[in-house]
Amino acid sequence: MERIPILKMGPFLLVTIQIDLYDRLALNLEEDLVKMVEKTASKGVLIDISALSIVDSFMGRILGNIASMSRLLDAQTVVVGMQPAVAITLVELGLPLNGVYTALNMEKGMYLLKSMMDFNGTQQEDGDHSFD
Amino acid sequence: MERIPILKMGPFLLVTIQIDLYDRLALNLEEDLVKMVEKTASKGVLIDISALSIVDSFMGRILGNIASMSRLLDAQTVVVGMQPAVAITLVELGLPLNGVYTALNMEKGMYLLKSMMDFNGTQQEDGDHSFD
Repeated sequence: MERIPILKMGPFLLVTIQIDLYDRLALNLEEDLVKMVEKTASKGVLIDISALSIVDSFMGRILGNIASMSRLLDAQTVVVGMQPAVAITLVELGLPLNGVYTALNMEKGMYLLKSMMDFNGTQQEDGDHSFD
Repeated sequence: MERIPILKMGPFLLVTIQIDLYDRLALNLEEDLVKMVEKTASKGVLIDISALSIVDSFMGRILGNIASMSRLLDAQTVVVGMQPAVAITLVELGLPLNGVYTALNMEKGMYLLKSMMDFNGTQQEDGDHSFD
């Protein structure tokens, strides 16, 4: 497989990672995702990793990269469905995924993104005079 | 990988098939899906196959099976994201996926499921006196 599908759902994008990412696949995913965020003006990216029983340092770095890139394009990233064993491994590896939001499952992740959108919307209305 | 993740999104379940299904994986998916439909009382199943460039007769049969099983549990199945080449292959193989609803992408599939739910809801209200 060369590309991981990115699904558009309303204002959000959804990615399910089911296999270990190798270099090429990870680079393609990063590229596809930023292009898609820009094209669809998405406000959030949901990454489901419930199928992964192992997350190594490479994968951890990719998740961090995706979150940082999306943030620059005004989209928040939420990683959902992490298995407890993965959380243990990540912390033991010294990769606590700083800067990446997490949620227990897809529905909770979507709720988190929606509340972030609402919060930002309210702030913009109250605060500066933006043109959108 | 032993299991394909099934994501719950409101009244629907979402499955993204990214790799070729072999026997064991397909059986696990069927089993997990019917259990999940029963547990969550979902009204619809969305199966995204946009990552697949080839769908063989085995995969075609599995999709048909899933749709039939879900229907028995009062959930409709919509296959979304089919690549044009896959549609050609399926018809040439003599597998036009009868009884399986299809939609161009995830959003259209979700819209289709919602309108089916609304339609069934209206019918039930107008028709017999059900207890729900």
